[in-house]
Amino acid sequence: MTVSREIRLKSRPVGMPTDANFELATVTLPDPGPGEVQVRNSWMTVDPYMRGRMNDVKSYTPPFQIGEALQGGAVGEVIASNDPSFKAGDLVQSFFGWREAFNAPAAMVQKLETHGLPPQAFLGVAGMPGMTAYAGLLRVAALKDGDVVFVSGGAGAVGQIVAQIAKIKGHTVIATAGGADKVAYLKSLGVDHAIDYKVETDLTAAVLRAAPDGIDVYFDNVGGAHLEAALNAARPFGRFALCGAISQYNATDMGPGIRGLIQAVGKQLRLEGFIVSTHADMQAAFVADMAKWIAEGKLTWQETVEDGIARAPAAFLKLFSGGNLGKMLVKLS
Amino acid sequence: MTVSREIRLKSRPVGMPTDANFELATVTLPDPGPGEVQVRNSWMTVDPYMRGRMNDVKSYTPPFQIGEALQGGAVGEVIASNDPSFKAGDLVQSFFGWREAFNAPAAMVQKLETHGLPPQAFLGVAGMPGMTAYAGLLRVAALKDGDVVFVSGGAGAVGQIVAQIAKIKGHTVIATAGGADKVAYLKSLGVDHAIDYKVETDLTAAVLRAAPDGIDVYFDNVGGAHLEAALNAARPFGRFALCGAISQYNATDMGPGIRGLIQAVGKQLRLEGFIVSTHADMQAAFVADMAKWIAEGKLTWQETVEDGIARAPAAFLKLFSGGNLGKMLVKLS
Repeated sequence: MTVSREIRLKSRPVGMPTDANFELATVTLPDPGPGEVQVRNSWMTVDPYMRGRMNDVKSYTPPFQIGEALQGGAVGEVIASNDPSFKAGDLVQSFFGWREAFNAPAAMVQKLETHGLPPQAFLGVAGMPGMTAYAGLLRVAALKDGDVVFVSGGAGAVGQIVAQIAKIKGHTVIATAGGADKVAYLKSLGVDHAIDYKVETDLTAAVLRAAPDGIDVYFDNVGGAHLEAALNAARPFGRFALCGAISQYNATDMGPGIRGLIQAVGKQLRLEGFIVSTHADMQAAFVADMAKWIAEGKLTWQETVEDGIARAPAAFLKLFSGGNLGKMLVKLS
Repeated sequence: MTVSREIRLKSRPVGMPTDANFELATVTLPDPGPGEVQVRNSWMTVDPYMRGRMNDVKSYTPPFQIGEALQGGAVGEVIASNDPSFKAGDLVQSFFGWREAFNAPAAMVQKLETHGLPPQAFLGVAGMPGMTAYAGLLRVAALKDGDVVFVSGGAGAVGQIVAQIAKIKGHTVIATAGGADKVAYLKSLGVDHAIDYKVETDLTAAVLRAAPDGIDVYFDNVGGAHLEAALNAARPFGRFALCGAISQYNATDMGPGIRGLIQAVGKQLRLEGFIVSTHADMQAAFVADMAKWIAEGKLTWQETVEDGIARAPAAFLKLFSGGNLGKMLVKLS
């Protein structure tokens, strides 16, 4: 028997979540049943998209249920196996995050080959956030030679990879982030124009100072005023990959709306929303490119780590206050 | 010498244009110079996009100049030619609308083969508005089998063609228009669900009553609340062809913005603005398809006609008050 602590959804957040929306519970796991494995998680991820699953609305993933453990990406180690395809000590990846340990059918965990990377990289640069950056920039935004690239949330888990892939491919890159430390990080990545959105009163003007002739590609992680600035600064045939809108996730009403969308007609802009799983066919190319870029020292990343399952809600909340530089993670063992 | 009356831009409209923004002037044309033709216009078009050219802003077409005759599509007859490629009596098409007659280099007018259609059809169904519908629906929105199609401004010059092409191709079509006569016209075209937006208080609810499972394609001629309803009613992977936003053309500020655009992420929507001239490579296919559909009696159209150059401003203003059923035209001779 294994004791595991887990974070459950206690109540659905209205607006910005608080600690009171979460509860820490302790469960005792039986030995794994036939065909099951028992896994001790070493790392779990918190991601902005999880906010949407806390609402009781139908979306591309079903809502979290009150009183049940939350879910999300995790890496860990098999500590007991009742299935011939796994043995104790195997490193695995799963969607059973937000808990210290779990039993699951063997088919619901995947063996993880780290290729020399730290295992938690597969929750960030080498995992879903990295793949999101790769597919969004190269396929959805259809990056092509000469494009000027603007990315919002450039110092976040996805944005830091977008900015670097665009630089590797030789583009002029404009990125926003909040605060001097994040701006310094963006500059260390080689970003051409790092904008501190917390000190700029006019984002459109700031983007146009950086790119007087306008932008061709916008990778949106933030929404709201950032998206409006991109519409205003876009050149004809600009392409927007709409990945997320963290500025809007805690809104309690429809808000003021996006002004200036009418420019999409005259400028012939394309705005396209996407979910990374739709582009799973790019996985092999993603792995090959990322391995090469990391090995060559061309691509790096930052992590912000909270320690222990009890800190998982705090880690999640920091996503919305800008408390993370790069990928936000929780170390579990 | 030929006397011609023309409409000039007297002042730039602020908000909704009025008669006072236009002036009627009389000019005397000399005989056509070497390489020139003289044309008497029989029909001219007024189109919503012209409102944008009345503002002093850079766009995909240059702004109209104060004190100069406006421009736009026209068909007419050569009445004198000083160029071997044209002779008196030739039917021609040009962008020298808003005037009764003009001299121009021969290269700036095109001979018009009517293929049995009335000449003014080449300002509507067989011209730019028809081609806009064709390219927007088939290429920009990438219409495919099974799509449920929603078009706003369905009884306008472009909308009436969008609705009919979608019906010819076997789709369920939802269209909006303002007023009982336009709704009756839409029903006569075979539109499955005709919505009178002037009586509906909740457009989203109206669209979802018509298409309980949502829409796949939205062809936007209106913007504003129509675009919001389309976002709310869209199914995953919906495609929006952004053709125009007549509800916004007279706005004097950025307005309240489009609410609900964030849904583009989770639903993986694509919103794409377009200008018909970008899709000129589809011209041959457009002509072939339209000729066939018209000959088979599958595609029809309505016109609203004002008589005489002096009525051209009134015809233009009716576009914004919904005074046109189908294509708005001015008969000049």
